[in-house]
Amino acid sequence: MAVYTEVSDRDLTAFVAEYDIGEVKSCKGIAEGVENTNYLLATQAGTYILTLYEKRVEPKDLPFFLGLMEHLAAKGVPCPVPVKGRDGKALRRLAKRPAAVVTFLEGMWPRKVEAAHCAELGGALARLHVAGQDFRLRRANALGIGAWRGLLDKCLPHADEVRTGLARALQAELDHLEARWPRDLPQGVIHADLFPDNVFFHHGRVSGLIDFYFACWDAFAYDVAICLNAWCFERGNSFNVTKARRLLASYRKERAFSDAEIEALPLLARGSALRFLLTRLHDWVYTPKDALVTRKNPIEYWDKLRFHQGVKSAGEYGLK
Amino acid sequence: MAVYTEVSDRDLTAFVAEYDIGEVKSCKGIAEGVENTNYLLATQAGTYILTLYEKRVEPKDLPFFLGLMEHLAAKGVPCPVPVKGRDGKALRRLAKRPAAVVTFLEGMWPRKVEAAHCAELGGALARLHVAGQDFRLRRANALGIGAWRGLLDKCLPHADEVRTGLARALQAELDHLEARWPRDLPQGVIHADLFPDNVFFHHGRVSGLIDFYFACWDAFAYDVAICLNAWCFERGNSFNVTKARRLLASYRKERAFSDAEIEALPLLARGSALRFLLTRLHDWVYTPKDALVTRKNPIEYWDKLRFHQGVKSAGEYGLK
Repeated sequence: MAVYTEVSDRDLTAFVAEYDIGEVKSCKGIAEGVENTNYLLATQAGTYILTLYEKRVEPKDLPFFLGLMEHLAAKGVPCPVPVKGRDGKALRRLAKRPAAVVTFLEGMWPRKVEAAHCAELGGALARLHVAGQDFRLRRANALGIGAWRGLLDKCLPHADEVRTGLARALQAELDHLEARWPRDLPQGVIHADLFPDNVFFHHGRVSGLIDFYFACWDAFAYDVAICLNAWCFERGNSFNVTKARRLLASYRKERAFSDAEIEALPLLARGSALRFLLTRLHDWVYTPKDALVTRKNPIEYWDKLRFHQGVKSAGEYGLK
Repeated sequence: MAVYTEVSDRDLTAFVAEYDIGEVKSCKGIAEGVENTNYLLATQAGTYILTLYEKRVEPKDLPFFLGLMEHLAAKGVPCPVPVKGRDGKALRRLAKRPAAVVTFLEGMWPRKVEAAHCAELGGALARLHVAGQDFRLRRANALGIGAWRGLLDKCLPHADEVRTGLARALQAELDHLEARWPRDLPQGVIHADLFPDNVFFHHGRVSGLIDFYFACWDAFAYDVAICLNAWCFERGNSFNVTKARRLLASYRKERAFSDAEIEALPLLARGSALRFLLTRLHDWVYTPKDALVTRKNPIEYWDKLRFHQGVKSAGEYGLK
């Protein structure tokens, strides 16, 4: 929910003239995405998303993100395709920021997730994983387990303000995960942030996967664990095993799980819950209260983490 | 910059099915407008704006606003046209709120106002005034001079926190205006909020006037005075008389000013500066600091008010 950067009509006209997409018809800031400024750009040639990359995105990562979308789209994954300027470049500058134009995808993200959405999602996620395997660029997971200790240390002094005992519990959890984190699971490109607002549906089918700005090289099963957390809990943080079963079953139709991945799933789910808990806690503690960003309650992920702590095997997620 | 109300895909599909505009292709919250929730809605038939009316709009006023847009559009004023459902009604309900679909207008509002924009604006404003004269519905100006005393009284205890001496100065100003406010100027439908972000331009011409949710019956010249405040000051609140001259000259080509209107202009400009000062001061004082709304600094309008206090005749606005 954010337009951080206003673009003047004059700058926009000059910017769009570097592309082969006709003249600007309209350009409206959209209230989706919290990291970057996004405009819905209509030109004579069609509708596009214009993104201005704000400071939370590392400029050096942009060729990875844009190249990945191009790679995936060419393999049939329904994701935005970067549009190149007449000079062949997709990455330009606008209003003193890196900027890119990508194609617009139809569909809406599900405000109310149903089991049928999870079934669709599982297949789409697996196809993304398979399609990314021969992508030639690499990007480490900047928010992988190696980053959690530093995040935790920054948050510790304030954690108990959010919930009494949280600081100690998080330290114990991270100790546990660091001692057991699997290092040899099948890896490749993962989306790493495939929440419902990043998945569009049209007529009940996945019509778009967006927001690849956390994508990186990491364990495929970790991406699955992120989706279990993001898609399979109900309000009040009860776990819907039907949703999980359908997500996992449809994933496995497109990409087989190894035994090691199945065994690791509860631990990966704990890890991914901790990752979102820590980043939300960090934002909760360090975002000025008058900032134009909705701070997400970190406690939601504490409840999810506690659920996974009680899971003894992946069978409890509906895996057979 | 606000999406206050999320609409589920299911509710949206059912809502759109009551219109003859085909199926939903996408629906994105847009970051424009602070009073209501606005979505850019793409269907098989085209692109529309879907507005959910939030609590700052009185439901009883909606037939006036929607009827006015329809009336003006039919007379050639480039404004959104309410789309009617199959039952002939433009005003419906969605997500427990009054809601309407209006046509989408091309163009962009000018982030950097130039004198040429002001010249275009003057003509468009006058044509709006002329076109509204035979509109049959009436709506009093809920933020006209009759409302300022109440607003001021609510803000007085906090005014000096914003600027020392402001409370006393505002009381003196309102006393002055109430004693002299003209009651017999030519009246009709005015927009009453025609700021740059409510005026779209395309190829240098006005392509759209939007956001009629303050429109009411009041003096035409008061609407002109609002535009002088909203369009003719530079950063730092210096007055650009070239912009004013061009705005006023192009207005007069479409609708003649009476002598009384010319004479009243400095006072009306003071009044309109006070009106925006008071509503901004009210929001500044009473909006929670963590609300998802950008509070606008009221002092900008204090500076503008001070400028108009020094104006001796409309000639200083470039009127001849």
